Amino acid sequence: MAEREYFQDAMPGDVCFGCGSANPAGLHIHSYWDGIEAICRWQPEKIHEGWQGVTCGGIIATLIDCHSMATAMATAIRNEKRSLKSEPYYRFATGAMNIKYLKPTNNNSELELRAQVTEIKNDKKYTVDCELYVDGEKTAEATVVAFLVYRSDQPEHGASKFTS
Amino acid sequence: MAEREYFQDAMPGDVCFGCGSANPAGLHIHSYWDGIEAICRWQPEKIHEGWQGVTCGGIIATLIDCHSMATAMATAIRNEKRSLKSEPYYRFATGAMNIKYLKPTNNNSELELRAQVTEIKNDKKYTVDCELYVDGEKTAEATVVAFLVYRSDQPEHGASKFTS
Repeated sequence: MAEREYFQDAMPGDVCFGCGSANPAGLHIHSYWDGIEAICRWQPEKIHEGWQGVTCGGIIATLIDCHSMATAMATAIRNEKRSLKSEPYYRFATGAMNIKYLKPTNNNSELELRAQVTEIKNDKKYTVDCELYVDGEKTAEATVVAFLVYRSDQPEHGASKFTS
Repeated sequence: MAEREYFQDAMPGDVCFGCGSANPAGLHIHSYWDGIEAICRWQPEKIHEGWQGVTCGGIIATLIDCHSMATAMATAIRNEKRSLKSEPYYRFATGAMNIKYLKPTNNNSELELRAQVTEIKNDKKYTVDCELYVDGEKTAEATVVAFLVYRSDQPEHGASKFTS
């Protein structure tokens, strides 16, 4: 069986609090394909609580945000029928995020996020649906807008403002 | 001049990653009144980046979430014409959060959030508008739905699920 490829392996030097392997603290999420869905499994720690035993809404937003950006990136690469680790690298930034918190999220269990791109406009604007599950129940759902702001073969375009 | 009262002083034992004084890590935000607006000023650290020099969208969501919940709580207490530190204590939980990220947020400057309750339904559902400014520019705006889920004089009602 092939080793699992994580989307974040295609984001070298990523300093992001939510997903950056180059961040010394942060959440260090990992996302991967399970068929047409992008999965992220993540175990919160006590400091990630919002209430006793319940995950903080802001931590949930961070997971949703970063997993959705990674899902947009991996979708763009998959649509080009190339491997995650091939260049050019792409990076997406969040344009908008609409989250519904449906139930308290048990901070003592492993969380699972499932995401999928539902729309692509002008090759740059990706809409991502992302759901959060814990203990087999959906506790949050979100629609996230992701913009392609950086590609490693055109570093002069896009988000110089993001990489300065 | 009177000492400034922070909304979070009325949230004893709060373990929340974003606003909890009882959280050993976390963001430890402080919110206060400036006229009819609720203000939070907060200086990010390097680990809070999403991109080099730019604040992580998830950290921004956490700030917006916690400042909005505190603003709903302080508004409820102010509407009862009593002081923040008087009992009963109220706590709000997030029902929904819609965030637009307008520009990159400079992680090296102090951030300022400005929030206001725009609607109250059935004494329980509060809608909060919250804006984020840095270097004098608005970089994000959000509408957040807050539910009154706990009051210290009726601990048996509401969010036992949040406090177990």
